[in-house]
This record gives sequence, C-alpha cells and structure tokens, in this order.
Amino acid sequence: MAKDIATIDPRSPCLTLINVYEVEPEKQAALAKALSESTENTIRHQPGFMSVCIHSSLDGKKIVNYAQWASKEHFEGFMKKPETQEQLKQFAGLATSVTPSLYTVEAVHAE
Amino acid sequence: MAKDIATIDPRSPCLTLINVYEVEPEKQAALAKALSESTENTIRHQPGFMSVCIHSSLDGKKIVNYAQWASKEHFEGFMKKPETQEQLKQFAGLATSVTPSLYTVEAVHAE
Repeated sequence: MAKDIATIDPRSPCLTLINVYEVEPEKQAALAKALSESTENTIRHQPGFMSVCIHSSLDGKKIVNYAQWASKEHFEGFMKKPETQEQLKQFAGLATSVTPSLYTVEAVHAE
Repeated sequence: MAKDIATIDPRSPCLTLINVYEVEPEKQAALAKALSESTENTIRHQPGFMSVCIHSSLDGKKIVNYAQWASKEHFEGFMKKPETQEQLKQFAGLATSVTPSLYTVEAVHAE
C-alpha cells in the first residue's frame, strides 16, 4: 500500500539517492509531474523501493528527487533495467543538467 | 525534546533547505561532524527549527544537509543572525563549494 509520508532515520540501512536536476523554470512543473507519474506507475513497484520525494525549488530552477532504496544492490538492480534507462533519458530531456549521488544518512536532529 | 527521525510530508507547510557541499574526501567526516554539533548545540534551539538530516556520499565527495524550517520567515530570521553567518563560514571553510537552495515538497511516494 502506497503512503505519502517518508521518514529519514539514521538507523535505517537504506541507500539514499539525491538527484539534483537543473531546469528552465518553464519546465519545472513538467519534470515534477514526469517524476511523480513514473514513480507511481512503475518505479514504486520495483524490488527494494522505499520512497521518492520530489522537491521544487522556490526560484523555479531546480527539482530534487530524494529517493530511498532498501540497499545499494536493489538500486543497482533497478538501474540495470533497460526501461529505467529509458525513463532517466525522459527526465534528463526536461532538464539542463542532472547530478545524482548516493548517500548514507549520517545524522538526524529533529524536534 | 530532540528526536532522531525526520518525516517528509507534502501536507506540511514547511520550508526545505537542501544544501549540497562538495568536499575533499579527507574533510567529509569533519564537515559532517561540524554540521551535526552545531545543529545540536545551537541551530536546533532557533525559532522554527524542525529538522536537520546530514548525508555523506558514498564516494566521499559530498555532504548534503537536508533541513526543514517551519516557514521561510523563520529560516530568514535564522539566516540574519551574525552567529549564523559565522557558522556558515566555518562549514564553507571545510568545503570546496556550497550550493544551497530552498524547496517545497511537491510529492511523496512511499511504501
């Protein structure tokens, strides 16, 4: 069952992908929509998928995809699929640059 | 009371700051520690503070600070303080580049 709340927990062994897209402001909404629809229709059904959180910058120039996968192996399995590569090309086509990096959660401080 | 779990919720009216630091790999741990200690000692006591989540890239080259504030006004109030500027200088001194941007949460898909 899909939810619409994600949690960031330093004890979770998950892999975090933070992908920064730079966009022309007139394409920001289209990229957010493409990411959201692909996540709902296909990406969230992949093994090891935990969450995707899509962020729109206030200045219109960026989209950040903050994604969690159960492990690096699950993420790599997802990346190897030809349909994933097709989707990434579609997203990149709406952006002027794409900068993905993989992370672990080092520390969380919350009220 | 401080917790160590943050939530990402598109219904929250919070402001999200995503700050990407590029670092020399030998300084990654020091920057993560400086961010974490400053958050615990001072930043989390500021009005409107909600959370700071510090991420270390697997390749050693980046730190991402994912921070939530109750509103843009709270964040701007925090940024105006001279002691904040001092802290940001300290963090920037450990990095080769600093790229902060402000976001709203557009969509969350989670299992």
